Amino acid sequence: MRKKPNLQKRLALCSGIMPGDAAGFLGKWKESFGFDKICIEIGCGKGRFITETAKINKDILFVGIEREQGALVMAAEKALRDEIKNVVFLDTDAKNLGDIFDEGEIDGIYLNFSDPWPRKKQAKRRLTHGDFLAIYDKILCEDGFVFFKTDNRGLFEFSLNSMSEYGLKLRNITFDLAASGLDNIVTEYESRFMDIGMNIYRVEGYKSQRGISVEKPAQAV
Amino acid sequence: MRKKPNLQKRLALCSGIMPGDAAGFLGKWKESFGFDKICIEIGCGKGRFITETAKINKDILFVGIEREQGALVMAAEKALRDEIKNVVFLDTDAKNLGDIFDEGEIDGIYLNFSDPWPRKKQAKRRLTHGDFLAIYDKILCEDGFVFFKTDNRGLFEFSLNSMSEYGLKLRNITFDLAASGLDNIVTEYESRFMDIGMNIYRVEGYKSQRGISVEKPAQAV
Repeated sequence: MRKKPNLQKRLALCSGIMPGDAAGFLGKWKESFGFDKICIEIGCGKGRFITETAKINKDILFVGIEREQGALVMAAEKALRDEIKNVVFLDTDAKNLGDIFDEGEIDGIYLNFSDPWPRKKQAKRRLTHGDFLAIYDKILCEDGFVFFKTDNRGLFEFSLNSMSEYGLKLRNITFDLAASGLDNIVTEYESRFMDIGMNIYRVEGYKSQRGISVEKPAQAV
Repeated sequence: MRKKPNLQKRLALCSGIMPGDAAGFLGKWKESFGFDKICIEIGCGKGRFITETAKINKDILFVGIEREQGALVMAAEKALRDEIKNVVFLDTDAKNLGDIFDEGEIDGIYLNFSDPWPRKKQAKRRLTHGDFLAIYDKILCEDGFVFFKTDNRGLFEFSLNSMSEYGLKLRNITFDLAASGLDNIVTEYESRFMDIGMNIYRVEGYKSQRGISVEKPAQAV
């Protein structure tokens, strides 16, 4: 991504929805922001998915996480422009989530088109690696979920195994999201693929072995 | 499959490894045949997979199930020709398995290239449908497994969901068996696809949530 001009200035203008001391909210996200449910997207990029999802789930606070500040500021600007009141953004790494959210504080996690890290020695960096699942497991509530979609077949295969091995209950596995009939909110990245008819893979992982624990998970996304 | 000449005569010649009254062995398969473990293949076709698998797992009794007598007799003749002592064949339907095997009597089930029954209203006929999984569950021992491979993407997707939903622990999911590095014994049907480089999908489903319950499942097949 190209160097953004005036990045610091633009970030400052978004500070209202980019809490500086995120760890200060640990255990207090719901009461501080006035929501009963919190979902996060790890790697929210320019924010198309999370802002669209937030718009149709106004009773849930969405937290967008992104390490790339140039993308993150665009996500935040979009949320401000659209006057979305239930989304905030954090400039942090997924491995820090346990320092930001308390045990069971999160209702759902979205992973969309995460970096495949295709080389075998990079496996630990994949956001569906067991080490990350353990972090998600800790911050997710008993009925929590991890929804994952990708265009990368190798990463999808890895993720199904990793999620099953970890003990998540897999549901609605699809190899062709467009043909599946499932509702779908597309990301920026995804829209480029849909135009050329490429397959999108998707899976839902539920912490509860009962599987259908979340009666109506954040509007099928 | 074309009408086989002299089918009844050929079947009669194989009667030594085609027990007529299969239900009579219910609960007594191990003691009757002198084996500690029993695996079955549902839809064994002409028997290439089951005979090859039996050859490298001589301590396990393999039971090949096939409704198509013309194929079944070829499987039995192959086993006789190769003098394989740990395989028998049954001319029956998968839905009758609960009348033939007692609860927990079976160690593993192989499903190879089962009929995809692609139409939605045919879903109940798919051998990985929940109704069949319930039958397998009943006859499988606590550490039992279901190994499934197919070239049909739609059936594989259906099967992953069905097996996960039923509560089997999924392991070694692969979308490209040839590239996976997993050991593989090919079926007649499969060999045709491998030559033209088509993908074979495969998954292992374990009844035990511990997953790695079978220390060394019948030589990675």
